Amino acid sequence: MKQLFTSLHQYYEEMISIRRHLHENPELSFHEVHTPAFIANYYRKLGLELREGVGGRGVVATIRGSKPGKTVALRADFDALAIQEENNVPYKSKIDGVMHACGHDGHTATLLVLAKVLTEMREQIQGNVVLIHQFAEEVAPGGAKPMIEDGCLEGVDMIFGTHLWAPTPLGDILVRNGAIMAAADRFEITIQGKGGHGAEPHHSVDAIVIASQFVTQLQNIVSRRVDPLKSAVISVGHFEAINPFNVIADKVELKGTVRTFDKEVQSLIEKEIELLLKSVCEGSHATYQYSFTRGYPPVVNHKKATQFIADIACNVPEVKNVIECAPFMIGEDFSYYLEKVPGTFFITGAKDPNWEVAYPHHHARFNFDERAMLIAAKTLGLATLNYLNNSK
Amino acid sequence: MKQLFTSLHQYYEEMISIRRHLHENPELSFHEVHTPAFIANYYRKLGLELREGVGGRGVVATIRGSKPGKTVALRADFDALAIQEENNVPYKSKIDGVMHACGHDGHTATLLVLAKVLTEMREQIQGNVVLIHQFAEEVAPGGAKPMIEDGCLEGVDMIFGTHLWAPTPLGDILVRNGAIMAAADRFEITIQGKGGHGAEPHHSVDAIVIASQFVTQLQNIVSRRVDPLKSAVISVGHFEAINPFNVIADKVELKGTVRTFDKEVQSLIEKEIELLLKSVCEGSHATYQYSFTRGYPPVVNHKKATQFIADIACNVPEVKNVIECAPFMIGEDFSYYLEKVPGTFFITGAKDPNWEVAYPHHHARFNFDERAMLIAAKTLGLATLNYLNNSK
Amino acid sequence: MKQLFTSLHQYYEEMISIRRHLHENPELSFHEVHTPAFIANYYRKLGLELREGVGGRGVVATIRGSKPGKTVALRADFDALAIQEENNVPYKSKIDGVMHACGHDGHTATLLVLAKVLTEMREQIQGNVVLIHQFAEEVAPGGAKPMIEDGCLEGVDMIFGTHLWAPTPLGDILVRNGAIMAAADRFEITIQGKGGHGAEPHHSVDAIVIASQFVTQLQNIVSRRVDPLKSAVISVGHFEAINPFNVIADKVELKGTVRTFDKEVQSLIEKEIELLLKSVCEGSHATYQYSFTRGYPPVVNHKKATQFIADIACNVPEVKNVIECAPFMIGEDFSYYLEKVPGTFFITGAKDPNWEVAYPHHHARFNFDERAMLIAAKTLGLATLNYLNNSK
Amino acid sequence: MKQLFTSLHQYYEEMISIRRHLHENPELSFHEVHTPAFIANYYRKLGLELREGVGGRGVVATIRGSKPGKTVALRADFDALAIQEENNVPYKSKIDGVMHACGHDGHTATLLVLAKVLTEMREQIQGNVVLIHQFAEEVAPGGAKPMIEDGCLEGVDMIFGTHLWAPTPLGDILVRNGAIMAAADRFEITIQGKGGHGAEPHHSVDAIVIASQFVTQLQNIVSRRVDPLKSAVISVGHFEAINPFNVIADKVELKGTVRTFDKEVQSLIEKEIELLLKSVCEGSHATYQYSFTRGYPPVVNHKKATQFIADIACNVPEVKNVIECAPFMIGEDFSYYLEKVPGTFFITGAKDPNWEVAYPHHHARFNFDERAMLIAAKTLGLATLNYLNNSK
Repeated sequence: MKQLFTSLHQYYEEMISIRRHLHENPELSFHEVHTPAFIANYYRKLGLELREGVGGRGVVATIRGSKPGKTVALRADFDALAIQEENNVPYKSKIDGVMHACGHDGHTATLLVLAKVLTEMREQIQGNVVLIHQFAEEVAPGGAKPMIEDGCLEGVDMIFGTHLWAPTPLGDILVRNGAIMAAADRFEITIQGKGGHGAEPHHSVDAIVIASQFVTQLQNIVSRRVDPLKSAVISVGHFEAINPFNVIADKVELKGTVRTFDKEVQSLIEKEIELLLKSVCEGSHATYQYSFTRGYPPVVNHKKATQFIADIACNVPEVKNVIECAPFMIGEDFSYYLEKVPGTFFITGAKDPNWEVAYPHHHARFNFDERAMLIAAKTLGLATLNYLNNSK
Repeated sequence: MKQLFTSLHQYYEEMISIRRHLHENPELSFHEVHTPAFIANYYRKLGLELREGVGGRGVVATIRGSKPGKTVALRADFDALAIQEENNVPYKSKIDGVMHACGHDGHTATLLVLAKVLTEMREQIQGNVVLIHQFAEEVAPGGAKPMIEDGCLEGVDMIFGTHLWAPTPLGDILVRNGAIMAAADRFEITIQGKGGHGAEPHHSVDAIVIASQFVTQLQNIVSRRVDPLKSAVISVGHFEAINPFNVIADKVELKGTVRTFDKEVQSLIEKEIELLLKSVCEGSHATYQYSFTRGYPPVVNHKKATQFIADIACNVPEVKNVIECAPFMIGEDFSYYLEKVPGTFFITGAKDPNWEVAYPHHHARFNFDERAMLIAAKTLGLATLNYLNNSK
Repeated sequence: MKQLFTSLHQYYEEMISIRRHLHENPELSFHEVHTPAFIANYYRKLGLELREGVGGRGVVATIRGSKPGKTVALRADFDALAIQEENNVPYKSKIDGVMHACGHDGHTATLLVLAKVLTEMREQIQGNVVLIHQFAEEVAPGGAKPMIEDGCLEGVDMIFGTHLWAPTPLGDILVRNGAIMAAADRFEITIQGKGGHGAEPHHSVDAIVIASQFVTQLQNIVSRRVDPLKSAVISVGHFEAINPFNVIADKVELKGTVRTFDKEVQSLIEKEIELLLKSVCEGSHATYQYSFTRGYPPVVNHKKATQFIADIACNVPEVKNVIECAPFMIGEDFSYYLEKVPGTFFITGAKDPNWEVAYPHHHARFNFDERAMLIAAKTLGLATLNYLNNSK
Repeated sequence: MKQLFTSLHQYYEEMISIRRHLHENPELSFHEVHTPAFIANYYRKLGLELREGVGGRGVVATIRGSKPGKTVALRADFDALAIQEENNVPYKSKIDGVMHACGHDGHTATLLVLAKVLTEMREQIQGNVVLIHQFAEEVAPGGAKPMIEDGCLEGVDMIFGTHLWAPTPLGDILVRNGAIMAAADRFEITIQGKGGHGAEPHHSVDAIVIASQFVTQLQNIVSRRVDPLKSAVISVGHFEAINPFNVIADKVELKGTVRTFDKEVQSLIEKEIELLLKSVCEGSHATYQYSFTRGYPPVVNHKKATQFIADIACNVPEVKNVIECAPFMIGEDFSYYLEKVPGTFFITGAKDPNWEVAYPHHHARFNFDERAMLIAAKTLGLATLNYLNNSK
């Protein structure tokens, strides 16, 4: 344990330098080339077992402990976003319109350096550590699914992952048993009426009136069909019927999002939206098109793993609070790992105490306190060692 | 009488040639220059009393009969539309993007030639004929109002006007006591909510949901607030909230039209829309902007004048049917004349019997059967002579 | 003509006395016994051709003129209402809970005495007069239909009828070409959801929410589906879901009325209500029952007959104004006669000039100015004589 | 500990006999006379410190341990319901229309006998046990509030309470940190329009249409105004507008319930309902009356106390499962105690394993497995002893 913390401190500068190198060279989801090569190269130097191109562009390395035992997987994602960086930092993105605005550069640097330390501690490890470097977390269908299908979880008994989180103060670790991240789905609807002169509604089918009714009734799904003890959001963000003032609109296009934490609620809503849409259109002589695109499933943490991480985090000196948080209404494809093996996903606070407010994730001025990487590495490392060495 | 019909037949070729000249040289509303000059020149040659620039761009000429008596006004409008003609006719518009697509070229030719004939019949006329050539009928606030303010109706006892109407068969005259053309108004609304993340409705004010409710409740004005024995239409043709799918819309823009035949109903609707809008917004933490722009008032024909024209039309040999029509849901600024003096506005059928379907007014391929001009001239001429010579 | 007016004046006291006798002895629709017997007896004394029990309880008598010719029918209805009279008049109803509160006593007295006068004028009549005394006008399916099926219109060329109307001043005659009385229909709806605990909407199907949506969307039929130039009313008067505050309602019962003047609009609404109901229920997991009961069709006056009566009425000295009225949103089974033969139904003003306000029809204090009977008799009599003696 | 379990077994027959005596003699909330006297008498015989008439009808006794220490309160409620029992049991209610249909007879018997045992163990107790026998839990404003105001919690450091729960299997203990029981509120609304004839909506203000819109829009409060991570239910159970089919309804009466677990959400909903109601009425020329009656606040368990009870329950031999349950959407005035002192309220499963289905609470055939009393007594007793003897 002592060695873990000491070594991590010793390599902290390297961690920062890796993070900044990655930050300067971001790559979009499904287009990552240099980043996985960089990761693979790092592991090659460490002499670890290595698989490249896992599920497409993923990299998986394995540390074998000195004695047989369980296998823990640690996951870090490495893709960036189509955002033009507006930060004035020495390590500003060199790629126009692409930016690590979600902290995946930090995730990767954290895991690489932690892997180096654990490799050095191999003699003291009972079992194995699988290092999963995932591509394409930001864009569904994501990289987790193909990497799992390509075997990255084979033999794994437990998985841990974390997200550096700029809005949460440095020193806080947020945990949650059960759903911590939502299913974030998307729907697109076209309501097709029949256009006409604004003075002749009876010869037309007024798509704006019909779509307005649909939006109005849509509220009933959350208020009446979903279990009030479960969370769900349905929002229509886009309503488009661009016409001269004196016509009857022939068509309306709607786009919206659904957020849920429970697969049954998710499926219920997908079906109820269409049932409602169908009925509103049929009752008004209109027709419709409906597509519902599932994003990632909710990230549902396992109870024992979550309790375990909460206890571990209390033993990291830089951790000031371990807090049971409310779930986040955003999506993460860490969900796929947790559908296969036990584990937990937690939040590592990364807000520099000197900032009044942190720019939110996906903002052009997003940044995080790099010390959070050290806290994350210590927590993941301690959890790994404890889990492996105390399991039978 | 006999002379009226004979002379009109005699000058029919001239009527066609004038119409085609005007058709080739259309001018937009409020931009008419050559057309009023052409008209004035025609009357100058006839030696008639003449006022140019009436109310801006109007032309008014007067025929004085041999004996004193009443004064009849006849009105023709002369502006064209911002439409690119698609007809392949020898007299196709020479002006790019401007077209006589509503028949005002025909109205003008009809009145000019009728005036020539009546001038020749001056000895037989008791009283006066005022020839009102109006600019800018197509675009509110229109030319009728300023021409009236500039005195074009002074001394007028009765006014007649007609519209050549391509969808109605040649030989039909449509009349209607009371409202024949609607008030056609326009409203524009902005509903201002508060934008936000699609997953956080409680931190936002969802403008799409609010606007949808507004549109839904808007139906009640026609169904519950307006006297069911009176006609009214409220149509929202434009609903704009263009956003990514996963946000809460901060703002919705609506545009629509209101059609009525009764000033009280018009005012009621203008007020009820705002009352509803205000209440829907107040109940949902939103604010709004509302503008209601009145178009022309309804054209309300006078009873006796309408009955008179109906009887007169029966005596025009080419008229096959005189029909009491339903009101038209479109606007016309002939309404202003009828608010000042008695009179009537009627429809002269202008659909060539060989056409299966006529292109509608304001269509790039609109045209009319030119013989309708002769029917209109005979009806207006006969009405003028009868009215003047039988009044005491 | 002169004889008509003179004789009617001469028998005016008898007319009043008959009316008051009938007023004292009202009989409910489909339960008339003494009234038809009284009518038949009156005609028997006049020696007229007579049929009793026509279509059930109707009485039809015929006056044959001295020369052959056309046949005019005159119709009066004779049933009363289930209302307890509150007037203090010497001729107050003697029957508990039954009252002539709609003026049918006056209609009957008018026609009987007019028949007597016309019988006396037989020598001057060319053609025939059919006197139709109809039972059961107040309650659908009414007496007109079975009387027609039983032949009361055989050989009839023209029919006239009038309603004494207390809200309209004495001396006014109201006429209208086309629809003058509405189709007045009734609908009943049950929306069946699934009851439950108020805290568990997701285990229930909330019939109140569904019915509220139905009522809200119902407004669209008038505002969007019906031709705005045509009149229609849909009103839900009854909404019943009586439950404790803390449950989800399993069921809602709705009752309402539809008023139209046009058979196509009537049919459209009947269908659109069900289409909407079906769709709202299907979109919300509910089921429904729907019944639509047609009342009488609209009374649609014929043009020539209406113009004829308007002209005739101008020749009745007591008639001060002949007014083209707006249609009435109430039902009348005179409609059935007009579906078979030409004719017209008009309104005879019956408001005593000394009354500030007249109690409305079907009110416990309803009454009418008896002089209206004389005006009605003169108008009907004059129309009959003119029609018959001027027809070829 | 051993003595606790042994003694409870020894007195189990007495516990049953007390419960059955109370079951035979139920008393309505705020009308309890014999029950508090019975309880007081029992404690008098045990020689305990005793206060009667606490807050009205409550009974509070205190066991003083041999050494000074903390004070634990245990609470049992003792009122019955206005239900006619339909069970055929030897101990069926002797009081017509009154029944212990919620298990409060069991609560009381459990606490009395547990108190007897703890009194016998006084020498081993460090600190005090306050026995709170509460009247009127079933009917707001309840007995808890006045008993607290009358000092029943003075000096209390920790409070425990349980509910015997027939739908939950015997052997299960349900616990929950945070809100376990909801705030259950009631609202009543009158929407006042203006009645009229069904054919004349424009002369009326249609209360049914307005109320339907209100109910439709009410759904938005849950779907758009409440934090989706928090639970809320708004149900309208009663919608009353009883009229003939052919009128416009002048008035609608609505009654409904609101369920929440959070005071802020509760207040938000109370305000949003009125804001919406006001705006819907103002937008439609109607007026309203609104009353919102708060029931009990949510029962919000304290974290440590809940964890403590969960751990204790694992040591009761008859307890098979300790389950973290979802919150219950019902009300309980145990909430008031937890607003003053730390503690927890838990559920003791009481479904006889031989029953296929248990009749729900407040049902005329409700009953529970009496062995649940023993489990409840052991859990409460063990918690009391552990808490007192391990506190410093």
